[in-house]
Amino acid sequence: MPRIAIAVEYDGAAFEGWQSQPHGRTVQDAVQAAAAQITMHPVVLHCAGRTDTGVHATTQIAHFDTAAHRPLSAWVRGVNAHLPSSVSVRWALEVDDQFHARFSAQARRYRYLLLNRTVRPAILAGKVGWCHAPLSLAAMQAACACLPGEHDFSAFRAAQCQAKSPVRSMSLAQVVQKGELFAFDFEANGFLHHMVRNLVGALVHIGRGEAPPEWMAQLLQMRDRRLAAPTFSPAGLYLCGIRYPDQWQLPDQGQIFAPPSLFSL
Amino acid sequence: MPRIAIAVEYDGAAFEGWQSQPHGRTVQDAVQAAAAQITMHPVVLHCAGRTDTGVHATTQIAHFDTAAHRPLSAWVRGVNAHLPSSVSVRWALEVDDQFHARFSAQARRYRYLLLNRTVRPAILAGKVGWCHAPLSLAAMQAACACLPGEHDFSAFRAAQCQAKSPVRSMSLAQVVQKGELFAFDFEANGFLHHMVRNLVGALVHIGRGEAPPEWMAQLLQMRDRRLAAPTFSPAGLYLCGIRYPDQWQLPDQGQIFAPPSLFSL
Repeated sequence: MPRIAIAVEYDGAAFEGWQSQPHGRTVQDAVQAAAAQITMHPVVLHCAGRTDTGVHATTQIAHFDTAAHRPLSAWVRGVNAHLPSSVSVRWALEVDDQFHARFSAQARRYRYLLLNRTVRPAILAGKVGWCHAPLSLAAMQAACACLPGEHDFSAFRAAQCQAKSPVRSMSLAQVVQKGELFAFDFEANGFLHHMVRNLVGALVHIGRGEAPPEWMAQLLQMRDRRLAAPTFSPAGLYLCGIRYPDQWQLPDQGQIFAPPSLFSL
Repeated sequence: MPRIAIAVEYDGAAFEGWQSQPHGRTVQDAVQAAAAQITMHPVVLHCAGRTDTGVHATTQIAHFDTAAHRPLSAWVRGVNAHLPSSVSVRWALEVDDQFHARFSAQARRYRYLLLNRTVRPAILAGKVGWCHAPLSLAAMQAACACLPGEHDFSAFRAAQCQAKSPVRSMSLAQVVQKGELFAFDFEANGFLHHMVRNLVGALVHIGRGEAPPEWMAQLLQMRDRRLAAPTFSPAGLYLCGIRYPDQWQLPDQGQIFAPPSLFSL
């Protein structure tokens, strides 16, 4: 039975998260229903990183098994014809039945986009976070320096997080700025619930000058969520790519870790 | 009676154009209603460039007269508190009563954002145009070369256009590319109805190789809308700024003609 891997792009504001719910207003429900129009049997999707309500993805990876033999274009153009405008399949690939979108993944990459100006966003409402107070890029960059490496991220873990261990290995943590837009990039072998939004909350606190850059390392060491800053809005958060071992030969493994070109010009 | 000029940003997908309608679902209606909450009397807005349904603005300029004397922050934060998330006032300024947002304007600038990839947009659905076929940047750049200067733009004028003359003076026409995103920038003393969307339609036709770059100059000379390409989608069109004589001392006159930083990183 063929196993198909797909890359999915979605506007998280249009859905109540990735994971299937009885009410059906999730990305997983939408893509499963559209894929079932092609397979002619129920489809169960497994994704690499479940996203919360309001969180977007430029490249979510998922897989499903199907009894249907179709050309790959059916899993892209065919499925897209049955999807709402807020979600699209970017590519599809037949993969070995040992591949698993979640368990084969080595690393996930997220980008948080933050608009820093006095007036709230209108064109990008729901697509960027917003901070009206001036932010110091240098302070936030200094604060990021303590994050790469293996750490207990309990200080940035939501109370409802179901992960067995709070230890994650982070390979990238950086902030860049262009004009009134900041981008925070994180890559790790995995992320705890709300971890990126909590990291951004602490970095913005530091960027506003309400705590020194060293506060970030102190938070990490104290491992107490109650001491850190509030969780930041989901609006600016994008799942930007999943890294897999070369053996699975997934497409765009170089590209998907670049910043999403949708926001570059 | 004070005359107030404001800069307005809006997501055109949320409105049925700028101009007030009996049904009230327009940008003008939304801003007039919000401003009236501050003035405590009915407000009539005059804008620099009326935009169609689905067309966005990073910087629309409008003015209104009011009997109310308020600090400028009331016309920004106060009005924004009464506006939906899809529209915001970026700044406000008290201006001379001889200033008129429309009649004082020297030039308007538009940017068209086009996503060029096989799969339709999801995150930026409604915010970019889309072309699935590969486009030649060089061909479109060559085609733009004939546009600057004073021309009869009848070939790019909608049938319902109410302008007295089809002659406009264009000071900028360029295309730039970054990855899968193209940006078309136009500046002119004025634009005919659907003119930018018709220009982009013709440029995309050339970019796809369906006509040579010289076709653009031929279309201009023939002045016949029926010979040109179809009107392109409003989704990617942004009014990016209005140029006024220095005497009016409007803010950001340098900045507003830069590409909108929302889409730059």
